[in-house]
Amino acid sequence: MSLLGIDLGGTKLATAVFSEEAELLRQECLPLEKRSGAAVGALLTAQVSKLLQEQLQQGDPVSAIGACVPGISNRKDSTVWAPNIPGWENYPLAAEIMAVAPGIPVAIDSDRTCYIMGEAWKGAAQGCTDAIFIGVGTGIGMGIMADSHFLRGSNDAAGAIGWMTMERSWLPKYRQCGHFETLASGDGIAKVARELLSADVSYNGVLRNNAGERLNAAAVFAAYEQEDPLARRIIAECIVWWGMAVANLVSIFNPEKIIMGGGVFGPAIPLIPAIYEEASKWGQPLSMNSVEIVPSQLGAMAGCWGAGWLALQAIKAAND
Amino acid sequence: MSLLGIDLGGTKLATAVFSEEAELLRQECLPLEKRSGAAVGALLTAQVSKLLQEQLQQGDPVSAIGACVPGISNRKDSTVWAPNIPGWENYPLAAEIMAVAPGIPVAIDSDRTCYIMGEAWKGAAQGCTDAIFIGVGTGIGMGIMADSHFLRGSNDAAGAIGWMTMERSWLPKYRQCGHFETLASGDGIAKVARELLSADVSYNGVLRNNAGERLNAAAVFAAYEQEDPLARRIIAECIVWWGMAVANLVSIFNPEKIIMGGGVFGPAIPLIPAIYEEASKWGQPLSMNSVEIVPSQLGAMAGCWGAGWLALQAIKAAND
Repeated sequence: MSLLGIDLGGTKLATAVFSEEAELLRQECLPLEKRSGAAVGALLTAQVSKLLQEQLQQGDPVSAIGACVPGISNRKDSTVWAPNIPGWENYPLAAEIMAVAPGIPVAIDSDRTCYIMGEAWKGAAQGCTDAIFIGVGTGIGMGIMADSHFLRGSNDAAGAIGWMTMERSWLPKYRQCGHFETLASGDGIAKVARELLSADVSYNGVLRNNAGERLNAAAVFAAYEQEDPLARRIIAECIVWWGMAVANLVSIFNPEKIIMGGGVFGPAIPLIPAIYEEASKWGQPLSMNSVEIVPSQLGAMAGCWGAGWLALQAIKAAND
Repeated sequence: MSLLGIDLGGTKLATAVFSEEAELLRQECLPLEKRSGAAVGALLTAQVSKLLQEQLQQGDPVSAIGACVPGISNRKDSTVWAPNIPGWENYPLAAEIMAVAPGIPVAIDSDRTCYIMGEAWKGAAQGCTDAIFIGVGTGIGMGIMADSHFLRGSNDAAGAIGWMTMERSWLPKYRQCGHFETLASGDGIAKVARELLSADVSYNGVLRNNAGERLNAAAVFAAYEQEDPLARRIIAECIVWWGMAVANLVSIFNPEKIIMGGGVFGPAIPLIPAIYEEASKWGQPLSMNSVEIVPSQLGAMAGCWGAGWLALQAIKAAND
């Protein structure tokens, strides 16, 4: 028997099949290609149908399905909200999957919660009871494992640390996605770079040649590697914000590990000691001394692994 | 059968006896009178012995004991650490209580965790699955109920929000107890008042007449009631810090309720709408819209109620 894990993002649909013993058997990734609304659901259910059929033909049928979405999974009515997929407000994802997978348990959660579930099952949080996943991608989110429980909040919106404030002067630009996300997410880094390029007309480095969509977080990290002064200034700021956020989460949760990951964070892994140093100025000293800050072990596969673990839990729930 | 709840503070020992149906049967409060180390333990165990004897004589013997301490209760070795009680590092409180209460289950936790347990049992968090207690006393701490679990962290140090940073400029004065506690706890308010009095020699209001220990948070609140300009400035700052902290906790936990309490917070209850307004600028909008910010219902008795609930859990654990 196998487990199907689905990680739906704003631009791609990743799927993976696992054994119940946490082995990755196969994986695929399909681009959404500007699909929206029901067309995204149709792509996803077609992929589910295909994988169920193929696993059946291989004599290793899928026994449960887990899925994660970039937004909120409402446990009360089994719908999802994914702000980056047009038309996915209260979208009946669970019902659509169950319709093509009769008799197979289905569980759905938010991507940030699945990231920490995945790391706990097969990544950097294995053996931990208390660990936090900070996902720095287009936005910033957090998955929380506390005392071996995964926290979702009263309306499934827990972990929205993009909204954390670490600076008392409020600015209108924080209204859309919060202080931390505005300054230190992938989109935030690109926006800060654009602001600084406009403000500093004397700057003539590599980032000046990046215009429009090419001026993204990856371009800033690449310029940072080349010791570009503007990029160094931007990344030095990010280290402060990431460090302060880590400190706050360490003081609040007293976790064993803070796991840093997400689509944008990869090139920042060498910065983890600097992030820890900044955090150490602020965090509760006993908790700071005992915490480890580590990179994600699962990288882009964290969501699929978490969805696979969710599938495993769905079997257990169905058997209870 | 009755439950004994003990709330040990830095200056007092409060005890209460409850029925298993959550009725308060009796309560007492003894001052520590500058006791330290084993003398505090002796006072506590003498009080336990007395209450066990009296309940036995009344035909309603104590079936379990819960206690909370102002610091950390180490689950690993059953000792406690209470920084405000000299000599209470790794203090064997559980062993001392068990020695005078043979055969009776004993459970110990931190005061901040007991505050939210008490509010969940008989106060403002009844019926909630997700609620946070922010205790503003001499320091600032937080009790966390998330998905009906009480969180303690990997080393029992969770909830140390006195260390939360909400301002990027680090100052050496934050080293002792953190940014938030330095600026917005009871001690913090008094320190800020002293700093402003020194800096503003032209001020000649009521706080000028308060010297030394009399210049405490209660004096600042009293002056605030009288519309003293310095006090209004201090409290306006506190509203900002409390509001930002509330926002961060709402974004992280998506709770149903934030409960504000603690020994200093009482006169600040009318400020809750202003705290909510500040928080609304910063917090995740969906979570801010659904959260209620409410005062503690149990006030100074929250710790005893939480310890009573702990006692009830100790019975259940002993019967498992």
